Amino acid sequence: MHWLAEVHVSLRSGIADPEGQTIGSALRSLGYDSVSEVRSGKLMRISFEADDSAAAEAAVAEMCGRLLANPVMETATWELRADEQQDPELVVP
Amino acid sequence: MHWLAEVHVSLRSGIADPEGQTIGSALRSLGYDSVSEVRSGKLMRISFEADDSAAAEAAVAEMCGRLLANPVMETATWELRADEQQDPELVVP
Repeated sequence: MHWLAEVHVSLRSGIADPEGQTIGSALRSLGYDSVSEVRSGKLMRISFEADDSAAAEAAVAEMCGRLLANPVMETATWELRADEQQDPELVVP
Repeated sequence: MHWLAEVHVSLRSGIADPEGQTIGSALRSLGYDSVSEVRSGKLMRISFEADDSAAAEAAVAEMCGRLLANPVMETATWELRADEQQDPELVVP
C-alpha cells in the first residue's frame, strides 16, 4: 500500500533561527510592519510503501529519529495519508 | 488580532530536487527500501497582526507572491489560524 508522509521539521523554540529572522526583516522592509516573528523549517514529502497505517506511522517516526530531524535542536511532526497518486502537485490556492 | 500562518513552499513537480533525491538515497541506504520519492521544501511560520480573516488571508497571499515563493519554480500553500499564543512550540508526537 502506498503512503505519502508530509514531515515538518522545525527548530525548537529558543534555538536561534537566523533564516527566519532574515525573512522577517525582509517582510517588514517590504511594508508588512505587523510581522512579529518568522520561524523557518523544512518540509519533506516522502512516498513509500507499508503494509498498514500502523507500520507506516512507525516507519515515519523511525525515519525522523534516525535521519530527518536532529532531536537536540529540532522537532518533527508529520501527517500521513494513503496515496493512490504517486506524484501529487500542489497548486497555489 | 493576532494570526499565525504556516506557509509551505515546495518545488513544482518536474523541477529537479537534488536535496529531496539525496534524502531519498540516504533513507534507502538506511534500509527503507520502499521509499520511492522524496520532495523537499520550506516551511515558514509567520506571526502577524491583521484586522480580520480576509485581511490576513490577503496579506499572506501577497507575501508569498512578493517574497516567500518563486512562482516560476515553486508553489506555496498555507494554513492560517487566529492565535492567542505568540510562540507555540511543536512537540514530537
